[in-house]
Amino acid sequence: MASRLFGHDLVSTRDLCSEDIISILDTAATMEAMVKSKGITQELSDKLIACLFLEPSTRTRLSFEAAALRLGAKTISVAEASGSSVAKGETLSDTIRVMQGYADCIVMRQPQKGGAAEAAATADIPVINAGDGAGEHPTQALLDLYTIRNEKESLVNLTIAMTGDLKNGRTVHSLTWALAPFAPSFIFCAPAALQMPDEICTALDHAKIMYKKTASLEEAVKADVIYMTRIQRERFLNPEEYDALKGCFVLTRSVIEAHNPGVLVMHPLPRIDEIAPDVDTLPGAAYFRQAHNGMYVRMAILSLLLKK
Amino acid sequence: MASRLFGHDLVSTRDLCSEDIISILDTAATMEAMVKSKGITQELSDKLIACLFLEPSTRTRLSFEAAALRLGAKTISVAEASGSSVAKGETLSDTIRVMQGYADCIVMRQPQKGGAAEAAATADIPVINAGDGAGEHPTQALLDLYTIRNEKESLVNLTIAMTGDLKNGRTVHSLTWALAPFAPSFIFCAPAALQMPDEICTALDHAKIMYKKTASLEEAVKADVIYMTRIQRERFLNPEEYDALKGCFVLTRSVIEAHNPGVLVMHPLPRIDEIAPDVDTLPGAAYFRQAHNGMYVRMAILSLLLKK
Amino acid sequence: MASRLFGHDLVSTRDLCSEDIISILDTAATMEAMVKSKGITQELSDKLIACLFLEPSTRTRLSFEAAALRLGAKTISVAEASGSSVAKGETLSDTIRVMQGYADCIVMRQPQKGGAAEAAATADIPVINAGDGAGEHPTQALLDLYTIRNEKESLVNLTIAMTGDLKNGRTVHSLTWALAPFAPSFIFCAPAALQMPDEICTALDHAKIMYKKTASLEEAVKADVIYMTRIQRERFLNPEEYDALKGCFVLTRSVIEAHNPGVLVMHPLPRIDEIAPDVDTLPGAAYFRQAHNGMYVRMAILSLLLKK
Repeated sequence: MASRLFGHDLVSTRDLCSEDIISILDTAATMEAMVKSKGITQELSDKLIACLFLEPSTRTRLSFEAAALRLGAKTISVAEASGSSVAKGETLSDTIRVMQGYADCIVMRQPQKGGAAEAAATADIPVINAGDGAGEHPTQALLDLYTIRNEKESLVNLTIAMTGDLKNGRTVHSLTWALAPFAPSFIFCAPAALQMPDEICTALDHAKIMYKKTASLEEAVKADVIYMTRIQRERFLNPEEYDALKGCFVLTRSVIEAHNPGVLVMHPLPRIDEIAPDVDTLPGAAYFRQAHNGMYVRMAILSLLLKK
Repeated sequence: MASRLFGHDLVSTRDLCSEDIISILDTAATMEAMVKSKGITQELSDKLIACLFLEPSTRTRLSFEAAALRLGAKTISVAEASGSSVAKGETLSDTIRVMQGYADCIVMRQPQKGGAAEAAATADIPVINAGDGAGEHPTQALLDLYTIRNEKESLVNLTIAMTGDLKNGRTVHSLTWALAPFAPSFIFCAPAALQMPDEICTALDHAKIMYKKTASLEEAVKADVIYMTRIQRERFLNPEEYDALKGCFVLTRSVIEAHNPGVLVMHPLPRIDEIAPDVDTLPGAAYFRQAHNGMYVRMAILSLLLKK
Repeated sequence: MASRLFGHDLVSTRDLCSEDIISILDTAATMEAMVKSKGITQELSDKLIACLFLEPSTRTRLSFEAAALRLGAKTISVAEASGSSVAKGETLSDTIRVMQGYADCIVMRQPQKGGAAEAAATADIPVINAGDGAGEHPTQALLDLYTIRNEKESLVNLTIAMTGDLKNGRTVHSLTWALAPFAPSFIFCAPAALQMPDEICTALDHAKIMYKKTASLEEAVKADVIYMTRIQRERFLNPEEYDALKGCFVLTRSVIEAHNPGVLVMHPLPRIDEIAPDVDTLPGAAYFRQAHNGMYVRMAILSLLLKK
């Protein structure tokens, strides 16, 4: 029997009800078990997936391609926009109308917020948003949920700290929305200029979801989960301000051991220096497992959207 | 039984007799039916196809890769020349002699007219020309024929108008040659400076094929088929001349509805603005179906050249 | 039964004992026979190979991809560093830790000597070095051995001349080490400034392996095998010196016919002009067969490292 999601697009996590999310996470768990025992299945062996990465994202592209290939599907890929028809002045909509004649599903990253929704409205095959600029990156939020559930055994009643650039971070915004149904409490840990936007805080107030703002990493690390992201120097008008602040948002083994040795540490990767290498060997350092989970979650999504 | 084309190269449509062309179009029709019912076959599952795109052409590359993969073949691809051995000073002939050790067939686009013929002469495996600069692009002409036959039910006795830059347009030249055996009449609609070259008109005279030159889009649209191509600003010495002319060669819904609502509208894509978006929803707007047909025709060619 | 090499990395030919080398060459011979009879097998159909080419090398990448695909494996590839996570400032070690979650084996080219060893130390899946800057390129040395054994029927007691830039040539260094167990004699033919480094000559002295230095191509061509490499103009401080010398190191048909018509001519390719085109049709011109052997040898290595 086809899933409820069969034939649908995945543009935003807001399109998914809790039942859909649980279905994706449960399917991802069966995919993880399959990969670990057999490596590759043939369940999508009659499908061809187009991976259109019109801005570079090696990690996400390879993760989607690996997911498709491990399901037995075929892949065709664009790994950069230069030289593509889009670069020759073609509209995104025309590109999509051509591609849907070649493929059974389009995975797309491109730089314009709303581009994935436009593509999904145009295409008569499923479109999966793999990042639309400042918009959404729903498979990242889903792999984050899968990781938290795996590591903490439940998604419910957790305190999640988010650290770094909370103002501009697409990842932390999506994860906040995705966690909302599961009775979370949040700690938003950032310099004042990079704190969580008011519109998100207001929405959390309306939903009676607890959150606290802080600039103290020591406080953030006491949560069940600390989700690290990068602070970019170029976000600061004043480089001295950045230099003064940056050390405050680098997670080290000594901070963890002093305040909460069991904390689960996550990061969407790539990291530059916001997690010290000595954290890597702690049992709670989940960021590489988190990256690996991306493949299982993407396998689940491809299977649920495409398998009759 | 292997086809007449088994083991051959496809460098130019001039290498094909009418029987070959009909065989390709008929095979493409069975490929279209197969894709729509099953998605993917295994008929070339013992073959590996090298797609060497030494100048960028995302659409054509993806179409060939999809064609190969839907026949069960494997693909290896070069998506741009920079960084390739050719860029290191290797001759095209040496590149081909290496590649034929890896693959069972080479699909090649490169910028030098005659490059595909040189590669075909070098290789002892089939070479398919996917565009050799100002030379030929035979699979484009064949997908155009397939589209016309599909949409008009026959290739015979049609009036085909060609519009845009007829002087420099590789596509319209190839299509003119490819249609010649099917008793066509032509309308060549272009500004005087971009009209069909004399050598082609002379050849049509010799073959007693009727044609008319015009600069009136209203006249062109009265044909059975109007084949639009782009006029590039840089073809004009004088930008004012371009600005004065360009509006005359933009096909709109109102022109079609006023003069010939049933006209079949084709375009090799990508389009920039030479077909207005309001044309897209007319039943005769065939250009996206035409692009999709490219995959079926390429499947047919790969199968006929490679399947024992 | 899994091979002795099962689960191992291949970073350097120095990691291989003679038994390993013979096992790889024998397996390559069965791969060559398989490709010539069946084209493709399914022996690695449950494996996914990541080809990370963080600096360009089209020939080597395509050869590895073709090898993997002809064994029934799936491939994901990075064809250039720009736009990859490494380009975003991620460490090689982090890249590898992410990739090992997607793939069953990593084939890697990158510009830092020692990078492959670092990746192998990090990864818990096999890593194959496809070139680490001025370091090693072990699959090139192995395909060279395979070619010599194929063409000369044995690896033992041969005189091998190496010509070109012996000072900087990674390929000739690796081949010298790889041949050492087989009782070779060497002729090192180069301008004095580009002769074989002292450390290699000293090691040969210790191993009591005979070698002679010369600048005479006529002398080199009298060996059983002449291995040509390119002399790069930029290696000379003084362009006139290059211009004076370069003709001395161009192998022509007339030199071969005058001195040793049966000599086996090899080259790692791409060649620029150091072998004249009129050599190509001589029976001893093995360089294209040598390139083709690369695929068989890489198939053997993938199979031995990955097949249970």
